Amino acid sequence: MVKTQGVKAVPARGRGRPRGQSGTREAIVTEARRQFSELGYGRTTLRGIAREAGVDPRLLLHYFGSKQDLFKASVELPMEPEHVIDVVFGSGVDGVPGNAARLMLSVLDDAETRRPMQALLRAAVTEPEAAALIRQVLTERLLLPIAQRVGGKRPELRASLLASQVVGLLLVRHVVGIEPLAAASRDDLERALVPVFEHYLRGDWLPE
Amino acid sequence: MVKTQGVKAVPARGRGRPRGQSGTREAIVTEARRQFSELGYGRTTLRGIAREAGVDPRLLLHYFGSKQDLFKASVELPMEPEHVIDVVFGSGVDGVPGNAARLMLSVLDDAETRRPMQALLRAAVTEPEAAALIRQVLTERLLLPIAQRVGGKRPELRASLLASQVVGLLLVRHVVGIEPLAAASRDDLERALVPVFEHYLRGDWLPE
Repeated sequence: MVKTQGVKAVPARGRGRPRGQSGTREAIVTEARRQFSELGYGRTTLRGIAREAGVDPRLLLHYFGSKQDLFKASVELPMEPEHVIDVVFGSGVDGVPGNAARLMLSVLDDAETRRPMQALLRAAVTEPEAAALIRQVLTERLLLPIAQRVGGKRPELRASLLASQVVGLLLVRHVVGIEPLAAASRDDLERALVPVFEHYLRGDWLPE
Repeated sequence: MVKTQGVKAVPARGRGRPRGQSGTREAIVTEARRQFSELGYGRTTLRGIAREAGVDPRLLLHYFGSKQDLFKASVELPMEPEHVIDVVFGSGVDGVPGNAARLMLSVLDDAETRRPMQALLRAAVTEPEAAALIRQVLTERLLLPIAQRVGGKRPELRASLLASQVVGLLLVRHVVGIEPLAAASRDDLERALVPVFEHYLRGDWLPE
């Protein structure tokens, strides 16, 4: 509850040097990230973020336009999409399903990298206006580029099937915690999931 | 919590004939179902249900013990688990993955039968105390009996992997609505999913 500092547009941190524009923006995003993940999308307000970040609420609108845009800016992907592509395609196209499944498992098993995805999922389920975001972030930025580069028919459909398995796993293993999936070893899940990733990405199941 | 009925147990509707016990119970469950699915688990209150059902709130506690138990009682499965088993195993064990996938697709594609699953999913994501219910309803009552009857190693793990794909599809296709999965034809999804059901249920991917 850092109620302090009136509403001075770009407040100084204590009495020190005032933050520059990018410092203010960064402070807003950091605070937004914290509140979205702790309170969920619905209970987070621009006013509350502004207060805790110690900035004028109008600055949030100035920088981000809307709550939804601020949410989008605050979603961290565990890694940059370009880097994901490098890792996933590192051993050629045959290795893609295995690399993608292993990368997903390691991202979801680490609480730190899982958190933004979890926040996104909660928001998507409870707030219709936030639902489009999971699509942009998970499907368009991550899975579709993979499916497109793998090649084959209808990469969008393949990517969204993959998305359905990824969010299903996140939900059942980490959010709801259904046993024994919640406690299953990474090795067992890899055995279970790699063939499914292979099938969705490269399987020959689509009609001519 | 059986505090019993200090409260004129079974209230009449207006001045008419008093409902019998089972009529009151049924009226509570019907109203609970409506409110849980419209308001979500978090915003539904026992008081609100009692008011709309026209019964004393203490009666709800008398019959159901807690909000969570009332929620559980109000979850309708689209069909009885025994009937599901009959349908899924109707053409022998080889037909199980296909029958199960087709049954799931038809249940999820019909707004009427999808609604209780959707309500359950929303509740599970937003309310930790409701999360155990999706496990009991989806996994223990539906998928585990199928996996057990199919046979093979670790039916619980197989059932929960299947659950992860089912709730992932429900989420991506129907709740969040990620295209092109949201608009994909039933035929294409059947082609995509039957091999995955086959793999999770009967695949030989578990180590000795």
